[in-house]
Amino acid sequence: MPTHFGPSLGPRQGPNGRTFDCKNAPKTREYSISFLTNASQLEAMLPEGFELAGEPVVTVEAVYMTEIQWLAGHGYNLLGVSFPATFNGKQDHVTGRFLTVLWENLADPIFTGREELGFAKIYCELPEPRVYEGQTHCIATWKGYKFMDMKIDNLKQLSEEELKASQNAPADDGILHYKYILRTGDWHNADVSYAVLTPSYTPNRVVKAKWQGQGTVEFHKSLWEDLPTTYHIVNAFAELEIKEYREATMLKAVGAKDLNDQRILQ
Amino acid sequence: MPTHFGPSLGPRQGPNGRTFDCKNAPKTREYSISFLTNASQLEAMLPEGFELAGEPVVTVEAVYMTEIQWLAGHGYNLLGVSFPATFNGKQDHVTGRFLTVLWENLADPIFTGREELGFAKIYCELPEPRVYEGQTHCIATWKGYKFMDMKIDNLKQLSEEELKASQNAPADDGILHYKYILRTGDWHNADVSYAVLTPSYTPNRVVKAKWQGQGTVEFHKSLWEDLPTTYHIVNAFAELEIKEYREATMLKAVGAKDLNDQRILQ
Amino acid sequence: MPTHFGPSLGPRQGPNGRTFDCKNAPKTREYSISFLTNASQLEAMLPEGFELAGEPVVTVEAVYMTEIQWLAGHGYNLLGVSFPATFNGKQDHVTGRFLTVLWENLADPIFTGREELGFAKIYCELPEPRVYEGQTHCIATWKGYKFMDMKIDNLKQLSEEELKASQNAPADDGILHYKYILRTGDWHNADVSYAVLTPSYTPNRVVKAKWQGQGTVEFHKSLWEDLPTTYHIVNAFAELEIKEYREATMLKAVGAKDLNDQRILQ
Amino acid sequence: MPTHFGPSLGPRQGPNGRTFDCKNAPKTREYSISFLTNASQLEAMLPEGFELAGEPVVTVEAVYMTEIQWLAGHGYNLLGVSFPATFNGKQDHVTGRFLTVLWENLADPIFTGREELGFAKIYCELPEPRVYEGQTHCIATWKGYKFMDMKIDNLKQLSEEELKASQNAPADDGILHYKYILRTGDWHNADVSYAVLTPSYTPNRVVKAKWQGQGTVEFHKSLWEDLPTTYHIVNAFAELEIKEYREATMLKAVGAKDLNDQRILQ
Repeated sequence: MPTHFGPSLGPRQGPNGRTFDCKNAPKTREYSISFLTNASQLEAMLPEGFELAGEPVVTVEAVYMTEIQWLAGHGYNLLGVSFPATFNGKQDHVTGRFLTVLWENLADPIFTGREELGFAKIYCELPEPRVYEGQTHCIATWKGYKFMDMKIDNLKQLSEEELKASQNAPADDGILHYKYILRTGDWHNADVSYAVLTPSYTPNRVVKAKWQGQGTVEFHKSLWEDLPTTYHIVNAFAELEIKEYREATMLKAVGAKDLNDQRILQ
Repeated sequence: MPTHFGPSLGPRQGPNGRTFDCKNAPKTREYSISFLTNASQLEAMLPEGFELAGEPVVTVEAVYMTEIQWLAGHGYNLLGVSFPATFNGKQDHVTGRFLTVLWENLADPIFTGREELGFAKIYCELPEPRVYEGQTHCIATWKGYKFMDMKIDNLKQLSEEELKASQNAPADDGILHYKYILRTGDWHNADVSYAVLTPSYTPNRVVKAKWQGQGTVEFHKSLWEDLPTTYHIVNAFAELEIKEYREATMLKAVGAKDLNDQRILQ
Repeated sequence: MPTHFGPSLGPRQGPNGRTFDCKNAPKTREYSISFLTNASQLEAMLPEGFELAGEPVVTVEAVYMTEIQWLAGHGYNLLGVSFPATFNGKQDHVTGRFLTVLWENLADPIFTGREELGFAKIYCELPEPRVYEGQTHCIATWKGYKFMDMKIDNLKQLSEEELKASQNAPADDGILHYKYILRTGDWHNADVSYAVLTPSYTPNRVVKAKWQGQGTVEFHKSLWEDLPTTYHIVNAFAELEIKEYREATMLKAVGAKDLNDQRILQ
Repeated sequence: MPTHFGPSLGPRQGPNGRTFDCKNAPKTREYSISFLTNASQLEAMLPEGFELAGEPVVTVEAVYMTEIQWLAGHGYNLLGVSFPATFNGKQDHVTGRFLTVLWENLADPIFTGREELGFAKIYCELPEPRVYEGQTHCIATWKGYKFMDMKIDNLKQLSEEELKASQNAPADDGILHYKYILRTGDWHNADVSYAVLTPSYTPNRVVKAKWQGQGTVEFHKSLWEDLPTTYHIVNAFAELEIKEYREATMLKAVGAKDLNDQRILQ
């Protein structure tokens, strides 16, 4: 929508029907922290048809992008929360990271991402991180209320060999989503309701450098008055027990894909 | 989306399932300019099943809202472009204003409005108007690029009688929309594709005061580099011939509705 | 600065040397809360030559302005903290409110206000208040960190007579400031160091309506990492004992003055 | 100001009196375009005591900074316009770049820079550049009005040797400014009025990489209504004849200095 002005524009369609190869662009800086929590807390977040895969390890990722082709070279930022899960459908049996929610700080990719791809994208402000004396501090706010602090310290850069090794890790099938669109006027039923996969194959993405360190992430318990559209989501994360922090990393990469290969799982 | 954190929150659902009566809130200031253009230019914007109703008069409306209940008292702004149209379905024959596009300056109402209601909402910045020596100047920008200027002058307040008379004008059936959601991975087909009506009945809305004046509105011819997601929409308006300006008004109102009565047209 | 492009522009000088009468503009909404604290805590904030006048009652005011003439009709917002004080100079003996600090959310009036007038203006974000079920909530943030919450409830509008009476209160001499500009390269000395008065006479300001209620104000204890330029100021307020809340008001006014009558105290 | 909360904080003074070495931080990306214009047009911008030095070549620089120590690791952006000039005082005879104006997108460094250092800093929005298919596009806006476009193409990275050679260029004496602070209430006189030098010596600044290309820069002729505080400055640049473009460069650097060595010229 609107559809009545000619083909709509977005990541998979530029002016005059052109597409974007996402080679050498966008540029991304990605900060990631993982922690072990309780399986039962994560299972409560899984839609029907999904189950936990392996250890209940949550990953929180903050990504800062520039030079995005379909935005004519503008950038935007993301904050995602995911954990390993398997979808067992009638036909498809795939394992990957279930992306429970993805905050973005620009509306345009939110609604195309929701409607075309089934990503659970919502909005917040994601200002440029603060980097001071070896610590990187990422925050997320909405209308002046800060609901997340992520801090990473002691980043040590991987050698060429370590970087290569880290990329040879067995890939999973991709990112798992659940697309759900309400039916207008029929508020308890859906027009759309199906699982979706972002296949992991992304040949144009190149990790240029990677760092490992330690970090913490904190979602702040919030009131409806603080976050009237999303406090229940933030609180679900605030309530997760952090049994043990795992990896904290930073990486710089170039390239992506247009997600033209996004597909419905059955 | 996400649906797996409990019932999602929005205009039609607050915490613990509460609803919002929209009585005495929100508060709105509304600036509106109409002009006569060519029927053929407007017909090109109509989805199948719709036709022009009466004179080809376009209305551009800039609305500044505060004290919105479902946002716990925050506000946001809107810019809409509409013209009179009739939908002739198998079952429904309704006449109202076809809302070709509605820009909003906050992401949260954009995606609920698109998905739940079928409004053609997209994003831009809509700063507070500039008011100087009797002229109000509203603008719309996206990432620093200004694509619209609306100016209203010579506002004269209606008397109590004139205000009452202006509200007794025969109401139409409401606002017409076309909801359209692509099918993931099947990029030429839709999951959702139907006409939608916002019925005009809104008993809790009260116009407190109204002014009439003269004005102009200008959409600026834009490049893909200026507005990579929406230049085709802005250019469709930039190309509209302005044969004659009609009414320019400002009004202040309180109250609205939660649009729970939005319905699919068949 | 810069001075080499012709006369600089600001509140006291428009294009072609014109001035601004500030009649019927700007429009302001003003929220104010007062509380009793310890005299010794306020005395610590007073520059030489100043002393407390009467009870140690602090007033925190949040002001939202639109239609400012010298900004061609744009607006901006303010947050000030003041208390009654007397300046005893060699020549001048005046009593008024000492304005310890004035946050503003636009840079342009900050530097003209500091340099031309001696106001202790600094910067923060001051978003439009949130108004929900009778409560108004004003906040102040800097780069995503919220350092103040002010909440006002139970606002009851004054009658015409009460409004008139409230304006007949004996006026003080005005607002007291201390202008201080460092000498470049000589970091322990000042180029400028003197007390300043904003005389209270402002004939073009008209209070249109006033409300009284109850409220609270909280400055949050902050770290240098939170507010690297102002944490010491915010903490000075966070540490103030609140012995008793006094008046909480809202008012709407039009008109102001260009502060051309600002004068040095000797 | 305010001075009554203890020592104020800024680039030359952190918490507990600490200073900042500016080694390895901040990180800067700098885009620069030079062009030949008319000597007489530049001479009109020079305060008394200054004269043009050599060719009338204007340089417009857009700088994007992150990891600033005195801001606890936050960043901000700058846009400066300068040309070569000599100051001939009673005592000092120095040649460098006269910085006619420096826009910054954060208020805090603007007022310390103006008052402590005499930089002609003013405010505007300076969003992250748009980089698309080899072109970098920097813009400057104020309240939604865009007054400058700078575009750089065809950037080719210098080799190690070329980079070294480019840094061996004979340095000038530094950056020249004119500090001017009005006297309160005495609107035609100044409290402060003197020339200032930023000495060029900055040992902790290291240029990591440099690129050369072609570019254009355009300041847009503006009305008072567009830029009520700065239209005369923007128009002075809009009116400059561009006889010939010179160098266009991008560079990445780390390190700076705290400008503690800023000094008055006599």
